[in-house]
Amino acid sequence: MTDLDAYGSDSVLDSADLDRLVDYWNAANYLTVAQIYLLDNPLLRRPLSREDVKPRLLGHWGTSPALNLIYAHLNRLVRHSGQDVLYVAGPGHGGPALVANTYLEGTYSEIYPGVSKDEAGLRQLVRRFSTPGGIPSHVSVPTPGSIHEGGELGYALIHAFGAAFDHPDLLVAAVVGDGEAETGPLEGSWKGVDFLNPAHDGAVLPILNLNQYKIANPTVLGRLPRQQVTALFTGHGYDVLWVEGDDVPAVHRAFDAALRTAYTRIREIQRAARAPGAVITEAPIWPMIVLRTPKGWTGPHEVDGILVEGTFRAHQVPLAHVRDNPAHLAQLEAWLRSYQPERLFDKEGALIAELAALAPSGSSRLGSSSYANGGRRTEALRLRDWRTYAIDVDPQARGSQLHEPTRRLGRLLADAYRDNPSTFRVFSPDELASNRLDAVLDVSDRCLVAAIDPRDDRVSPNGRVMEVLSEHLCQGWLEAYTLTGRHGLFATYEAFAMVSASMLIQHTKWLQEASRLAWRAPVPSLNVLLTSTCWRNDHNGFSHQGPGLLDTVVPLSPGVVRVWLPPDANTLLSVADHCLRSHDHVNLIVADKQPHHQYLTAGEAAEHAARGGSVWDWAGTERTLRRDADIVLAGIGDVPTMEILAAAELLHTFVPDLAVRVVNVIDLMALLRSDLHPHGFSSAMFRALFTDSTDVIVGFHGYSRGIHQLLHGRPNADRFHVRGFMEQGTTTTPFDMVVRNQVSRYHLAQLALEFARVTPAGSDRLVSYCQDQLARHHAHIIEHFEDLPEIRDWTWANQPS
Amino acid sequence: MTDLDAYGSDSVLDSADLDRLVDYWNAANYLTVAQIYLLDNPLLRRPLSREDVKPRLLGHWGTSPALNLIYAHLNRLVRHSGQDVLYVAGPGHGGPALVANTYLEGTYSEIYPGVSKDEAGLRQLVRRFSTPGGIPSHVSVPTPGSIHEGGELGYALIHAFGAAFDHPDLLVAAVVGDGEAETGPLEGSWKGVDFLNPAHDGAVLPILNLNQYKIANPTVLGRLPRQQVTALFTGHGYDVLWVEGDDVPAVHRAFDAALRTAYTRIREIQRAARAPGAVITEAPIWPMIVLRTPKGWTGPHEVDGILVEGTFRAHQVPLAHVRDNPAHLAQLEAWLRSYQPERLFDKEGALIAELAALAPSGSSRLGSSSYANGGRRTEALRLRDWRTYAIDVDPQARGSQLHEPTRRLGRLLADAYRDNPSTFRVFSPDELASNRLDAVLDVSDRCLVAAIDPRDDRVSPNGRVMEVLSEHLCQGWLEAYTLTGRHGLFATYEAFAMVSASMLIQHTKWLQEASRLAWRAPVPSLNVLLTSTCWRNDHNGFSHQGPGLLDTVVPLSPGVVRVWLPPDANTLLSVADHCLRSHDHVNLIVADKQPHHQYLTAGEAAEHAARGGSVWDWAGTERTLRRDADIVLAGIGDVPTMEILAAAELLHTFVPDLAVRVVNVIDLMALLRSDLHPHGFSSAMFRALFTDSTDVIVGFHGYSRGIHQLLHGRPNADRFHVRGFMEQGTTTTPFDMVVRNQVSRYHLAQLALEFARVTPAGSDRLVSYCQDQLARHHAHIIEHFEDLPEIRDWTWANQPS
Repeated sequence: MTDLDAYGSDSVLDSADLDRLVDYWNAANYLTVAQIYLLDNPLLRRPLSREDVKPRLLGHWGTSPALNLIYAHLNRLVRHSGQDVLYVAGPGHGGPALVANTYLEGTYSEIYPGVSKDEAGLRQLVRRFSTPGGIPSHVSVPTPGSIHEGGELGYALIHAFGAAFDHPDLLVAAVVGDGEAETGPLEGSWKGVDFLNPAHDGAVLPILNLNQYKIANPTVLGRLPRQQVTALFTGHGYDVLWVEGDDVPAVHRAFDAALRTAYTRIREIQRAARAPGAVITEAPIWPMIVLRTPKGWTGPHEVDGILVEGTFRAHQVPLAHVRDNPAHLAQLEAWLRSYQPERLFDKEGALIAELAALAPSGSSRLGSSSYANGGRRTEALRLRDWRTYAIDVDPQARGSQLHEPTRRLGRLLADAYRDNPSTFRVFSPDELASNRLDAVLDVSDRCLVAAIDPRDDRVSPNGRVMEVLSEHLCQGWLEAYTLTGRHGLFATYEAFAMVSASMLIQHTKWLQEASRLAWRAPVPSLNVLLTSTCWRNDHNGFSHQGPGLLDTVVPLSPGVVRVWLPPDANTLLSVADHCLRSHDHVNLIVADKQPHHQYLTAGEAAEHAARGGSVWDWAGTERTLRRDADIVLAGIGDVPTMEILAAAELLHTFVPDLAVRVVNVIDLMALLRSDLHPHGFSSAMFRALFTDSTDVIVGFHGYSRGIHQLLHGRPNADRFHVRGFMEQGTTTTPFDMVVRNQVSRYHLAQLALEFARVTPAGSDRLVSYCQDQLARHHAHIIEHFEDLPEIRDWTWANQPS
Repeated sequence: MTDLDAYGSDSVLDSADLDRLVDYWNAANYLTVAQIYLLDNPLLRRPLSREDVKPRLLGHWGTSPALNLIYAHLNRLVRHSGQDVLYVAGPGHGGPALVANTYLEGTYSEIYPGVSKDEAGLRQLVRRFSTPGGIPSHVSVPTPGSIHEGGELGYALIHAFGAAFDHPDLLVAAVVGDGEAETGPLEGSWKGVDFLNPAHDGAVLPILNLNQYKIANPTVLGRLPRQQVTALFTGHGYDVLWVEGDDVPAVHRAFDAALRTAYTRIREIQRAARAPGAVITEAPIWPMIVLRTPKGWTGPHEVDGILVEGTFRAHQVPLAHVRDNPAHLAQLEAWLRSYQPERLFDKEGALIAELAALAPSGSSRLGSSSYANGGRRTEALRLRDWRTYAIDVDPQARGSQLHEPTRRLGRLLADAYRDNPSTFRVFSPDELASNRLDAVLDVSDRCLVAAIDPRDDRVSPNGRVMEVLSEHLCQGWLEAYTLTGRHGLFATYEAFAMVSASMLIQHTKWLQEASRLAWRAPVPSLNVLLTSTCWRNDHNGFSHQGPGLLDTVVPLSPGVVRVWLPPDANTLLSVADHCLRSHDHVNLIVADKQPHHQYLTAGEAAEHAARGGSVWDWAGTERTLRRDADIVLAGIGDVPTMEILAAAELLHTFVPDLAVRVVNVIDLMALLRSDLHPHGFSSAMFRALFTDSTDVIVGFHGYSRGIHQLLHGRPNADRFHVRGFMEQGTTTTPFDMVVRNQVSRYHLAQLALEFARVTPAGSDRLVSYCQDQLARHHAHIIEHFEDLPEIRDWTWANQPS
């Protein structure tokens, strides 16, 4: 039997253990090289010929030997301790290393039976690596045991901590390359330990592979004096264990000792924190390992007389001209044979039993960890009926109440915390209270594993509300939290969601690819609440005004991307309930935090959200006039919807004979044709909302052309006249924001008259009125620094019908 | 006279100095509070009434006292040493502090004469702060002396180092808040010292204001044990000078001593490095100051019985209900009067002479620094005639040569390094050689201020080519390098440009706002080369494939944004030459690094780029057939242009009677109407390219809907059928990438037949041929892992006319 705490003391590596471990490592290194180079002859049962070599050589050798070494030692840790381990490979270019190891341990063949544990399977393995129709060259979605794509660098530790939160039985071994260690997000992620509670969270063991070179340059950390590196990580809160060298047995012995020391300390920290009555008063000093080994270790030392091993030249494919250069071919064969594959694999081509026994078995294998296939661990989120939090809207007095929509959402989230005490978290860059979501703090404190001061407000090491001033950490922690099977929400100022936009893109790519793999179970969606939006960052100014994330996600996978713009609190609640229950999506929800008018009853909100868009008869005049619309007004987003409704009211007042239809769209992607997006309105539905030919005035939350790109291909798309954010902003008043961007009621009403099918009596008066009001606004705002009183106090009261 | 080295020894603060300094600080604090609260009565010459208070209170008090303290001490340093100092305020919410100081020193009134140095001017000052039509609440473009917008946090140190490069006489004092210190980009930016050459660069003095709280939470750094903070910054390469406390004179004295120590060390480092024969062999240990003072220091200690000073509650407006709550009003008055304005300002309302003398004069004032108005320092970039680097294209054999376009660009950049030895730099995330720009290394090494190893390739402390594995650093260093008057290029993998997309947005906003201020001189453009594009990251896989930055920038300011997609090397050279000479723009240049066909002579390339788009008669059949086009084929971007040309060739071969026009667009924004973008094609030009009604098949580099949004409003926009990146990718072959995204020649040729005005003889044969070729491709790629030979070896040889 294994014993979580036995590993440290009872498992010292003896000389026979060491030999076997090195052999296992050799097998992994061998398969790594084989994947990069070979098409055939995977065990070198015959002399290597140029036909055995791929026509195009892709892959990254440099980082792989270290990734293989770490994997072999983690196998040993798992076998001796029974510890659940998740391997996060930051140097994701080392795809072949992770594939090799999951093959050696048997996981790969179980998931991909065509890649069997024999010579035929090995031939398949090498052929599929980095080839069209095969598997990508980086650690990626098809790699068993991974939640972390190799490619865009910087997120390994972020993902490691996100996976460890609320997984007390998990140890995440996070390998960090010294190249990616230069990125901002990675440097910002060491502080995860200040948010990791040793009692209810798992552990993260960072292993920095200091191989000293990146693609073409020395790394910054690789060139710092050793004591400076130690100081840096001491400052980040770690106890640094160094393992250095290029002597194979010595490094393996040293790494074994460091890993045992690290694991023993982790267990001590956890035992202390988990003892009855234990109180955490400061961040524990967690261990980390710095592994300083040559880049491309055990690979070609020199090529064509130039030093390769231990330099940046080992980064990718050290021997690049194998097919055309017999000397390179010979050197490749010698390199491959240096691992003695004939000793490592049996007659059938399977790893010899003595070595196969070094891997853990079943779901203990790193490649088979359910943590890396989080859908298998996911429990449905327990959510109460969202109508509990709904606002009671009287259909006879729509718009008469002002509420902060996100404050209602906060209550829903608070109950989600109550009912899912270890599978739900909210992540925010220090804006939770600002964004009116602070009801969650009635259930759980903010998390900070540090000495707490009486001046702090609901902060504690036991808190599970995650506030850190880093969009990268919030986004990435949630990514990993959901990929390992839990639920959550990232709430952020709309403009600053762009800070982590590239991460959102990569996560969308991950979900898109995962949906193609049956063995990857669906995981909870990544939910992003964009609030404090461009329209209502009037107090903070231009840098805080930017709806650009919509434009970033709209072109991405239609199978993954969902964008919601609820116009009021009840629709926000309905949408949030839907999103929090969903799987495999990236849900953007755009909803402001300031007081807004409330339009729909809970029942109507549910229907509206499910449909994606509706005609709001109560706001139009088609029914009263018993005539089809002369003009359609469509609102998309909370503030523009308010302006659209106010414009409809103006039209009703001044030009009562004009047949006006008011439409609201809540599901942005529904504007796309249904063959382009699963949520796309059918042609019939689109026609029912917008007719085929009547002009449509759209007030949109984001950049107006974002709507035009979606509407392309719809009937007479030219008839849509969209006003949205025109990149005009500053510190000003809310109404001035819509004026500056020409989406005010006065702009929209005039636009409606311009494009209506008829010119009703009263048009001139309305145009004059609008122009006067705009002129008054400009005069008033300069003098009084506030919105016109009639705007400030406007409510949707004079319902036209 | 001042003496750069005298400050340390000769300027010890005596007790009278201290009193004056504290008074100056009080004046700045007073004006800070006045800006946040007052509409009128700026010197409290009468009792404060509710009418004196703004109807809406905006601004950030918490960080301001520290910003004011630092400013006052830097004034003293400048006066005593004559040192050129640039003040970068990371806690940008402290806008009123910087405004107050630039007013006290006189800069503000010189730039904005309406804000005169008297009571009337003071009234203007407080009225314009954070009000519509006034100035934003953050440090922003209208703030004299600033190159750094307050708002999106994390870039203060990045901008500081970017400003210091190649400015040997400059000291950048960079104030970092402990909130923003949590962001990834900020944490990643301390390593600037490893790239700062004390001989030819200036100095950066980071001042961390550890006020321990952010909006609602304690900061991570604020809660770490002191020795851990010291270890962290020691690890980053700094010598930490601590200044702590809340006793006013004691803190001022301590800060004075720390600043003198820091400055003395900086001068020692510089003297040593600048001595004749000096060789730099490692990064010097630069000083930094940690200033640990209470948040909202000197403000209300308690409000309504709740502690405010020294807590997160001091972050914004400590007294929030002044107009409605007489007790708050009284407390505000007491707070304002605590600074004794009657002692600080004279009868006219000007700062008393004794205090005014504490500020430096003329261009030595921090607010008047030419470094912060870099256009005033800008020298034109010396560029040789780009035709020197051009490829000799034979108009009779277009497309017969393959060249790596960026390699040619590398030669141009190399000469730019030669001819502008201290005003031009290239920034790259370790991809310079990968992106074929390594010719610059023949002129200048890569920069790393560290011990150099024989294994390194052209790396040196004296190098001025900037390679660091951080898009944030590359982008932000270049931002500041250009804002302070120098020229440069950020070259990056296209997909990973998204990592710093939010910075690009903020820089675009900066340039947009700066263009409205006559006193801000035009600065060199920010040039971004997007290479290793989605189409040719076939080797790296899906994570490396993403053209999304185009969608990010297209909605931004038309006055600033320029997007170029040169189809070959000569057009790239022409565009690069144009962009490098331009001012006040954000230029995106999308050009792949792999071998591509060459189409245009240098002369044609120049004309094509200047026009923005052209009909390529030589590739179409209109002339031969003497008939207007039945179909237009348009290429935008290098790979899609190749596929468009190959499709035209197929059409010519199979359906010679079809009149085909081939168009190429190089200037993406020219697709917008000319009333929407200064580069927009006139209606006549648009018609000349695309006709009014003929269908157009577009092969586009980016997401196809990006084109539709630009075309909205053009005649019959529905006739444009765009194929672009459809978010389909993996590790595969180049041709498979265009097949997966349906933009291959076989897709485009079939699309042309589908939408052509006529159905020419041979259409069926061509459709069959295309379908066969696609079927063969799929079979071939699985078997051979490479492109079909006829694709691989295709050249634009069979010119139709």
